[in-house]
Amino acid sequence: MFRRLAVVGLGLLGGSLCRAVKEKDGSVSVTAFTRDTKRLSGALSEGIVDLALPVEELTPEGFELMVIASPVLSSMESLKILLDHPKLGGCLLSDVGSVKAPLVALAEANPNGARFVGCHPMAGSEKSGYEHSSGTLYRGASVIITPGKNNSETDIQTMERFWASLGADTVRCDAEEHDRLVAVTSHVPHLAACALADLAAEASAGGRLTPFIGSGFRDLTRIAMGSPDMWTDIEAANAENIVRAIDALSAKLGHIRRFIAEGRHETEGRAFLERAGSFRRSVG
Amino acid sequence: MFRRLAVVGLGLLGGSLCRAVKEKDGSVSVTAFTRDTKRLSGALSEGIVDLALPVEELTPEGFELMVIASPVLSSMESLKILLDHPKLGGCLLSDVGSVKAPLVALAEANPNGARFVGCHPMAGSEKSGYEHSSGTLYRGASVIITPGKNNSETDIQTMERFWASLGADTVRCDAEEHDRLVAVTSHVPHLAACALADLAAEASAGGRLTPFIGSGFRDLTRIAMGSPDMWTDIEAANAENIVRAIDALSAKLGHIRRFIAEGRHETEGRAFLERAGSFRRSVG
Repeated sequence: MFRRLAVVGLGLLGGSLCRAVKEKDGSVSVTAFTRDTKRLSGALSEGIVDLALPVEELTPEGFELMVIASPVLSSMESLKILLDHPKLGGCLLSDVGSVKAPLVALAEANPNGARFVGCHPMAGSEKSGYEHSSGTLYRGASVIITPGKNNSETDIQTMERFWASLGADTVRCDAEEHDRLVAVTSHVPHLAACALADLAAEASAGGRLTPFIGSGFRDLTRIAMGSPDMWTDIEAANAENIVRAIDALSAKLGHIRRFIAEGRHETEGRAFLERAGSFRRSVG
Repeated sequence: MFRRLAVVGLGLLGGSLCRAVKEKDGSVSVTAFTRDTKRLSGALSEGIVDLALPVEELTPEGFELMVIASPVLSSMESLKILLDHPKLGGCLLSDVGSVKAPLVALAEANPNGARFVGCHPMAGSEKSGYEHSSGTLYRGASVIITPGKNNSETDIQTMERFWASLGADTVRCDAEEHDRLVAVTSHVPHLAACALADLAAEASAGGRLTPFIGSGFRDLTRIAMGSPDMWTDIEAANAENIVRAIDALSAKLGHIRRFIAEGRHETEGRAFLERAGSFRRSVG
């Protein structure tokens, strides 16, 4: 679909994008802009990227599509540079970040902003970095596309076809709504996992907690091993929705505390467990 | 080690215990007492148990070891019946429940209580029921043994050798301390997973939330699909420790909320994420 592609950032998501594109069609020219030159040499020798440039030399010149794949605050800086670049030309811009409204707002406030189509692939894990990238990361993943009011239908459809060509399922969603929903399905769950790990760390004062940790705790808190760089930016960029979702979670915990403290396990307690389990089963 | 074994309850843990014993030595006689007679016929035809009896006929007569493997409140009822039974004789009693202090207290208050050695294998998953039982469930699992003040060293060591023979690693711990620790490593994490699933269910009003759910959320909330029977009893039996751990979790969430609302992501936020991730990595 694109003959000349660039990614900005070559971590798990950027690296996996390059791999997926190259595995599909090795003749596509892929350029990576990144801070970490060690990653560049690995990607070059593996043939995952054709050209590797430091992010200081960021330019849209000559590319048909540039996908920004860095932590959200860095992505906003790169997006601003690219939208203001005199050589932007016909280059389509996109990203893979977990927070969308600030980027869409930034684009909408820019005269060239129509060329940015925000995307969020629901892919990734607690593992980060190019070394964990995979050509199949996006296969079967859902990619939320958050069109801005200046995007052309053609550009949106182009991005939908691009992700579909890598095996992903796309869904369109308003950026504000996206950010509100992922605060509940991703950002606050991550913080709750960190909070639970931190509580356990405190309870573990003597260092003898390990035998008390089972697979449930490990599954639940795995995401707490995620990249602090990525998550710190997400917390900053989606602070308002995250705070609101933390308040909702705290209220829910208060409710649970009451029915346990007051001995209503068999009535309210059981109904709550059944409702939560039933929803969880419904999402596979 | 034992020639005549009985389990009370033939769910995931009881069924797995029978399988593990039979796989090790098919000549051991295994009797199951259970409520659900459908399970009994399956276990009989598979050769996992030799004799199957309804729980109404519960008796320790003729067994060397009886392991109670039902939800905690039912286990307390069975333990009381067995300790008071005129035919208790030399039968050693144990259990596999997630809450220990109430059972140890019940035994300590009983003239025959020295024969009960409480155990908690940190094994299991969101799956429950005999149909998911496995002969390898306990292999590599840690089993917490919570001796009571009347237990003989011989009986404690017998239970340690029994679990070791099934491939588990045993650790001794005071029952009160056990219950305080598992509230933090298991019971409140389970409730938090349910709370997150329930919040997502509410946010999903329109039913279009599924594309926003990634593997992080699925891992985190998997335990919310656990058996409501088992968890309702745990909440009742360990209410005090659970309430205290919910309070600690709520305080932690309040702390997180503040550093996010006040924009201290790069300082307090990053330090918190790094501490949580570092603890999580330390437990494998």
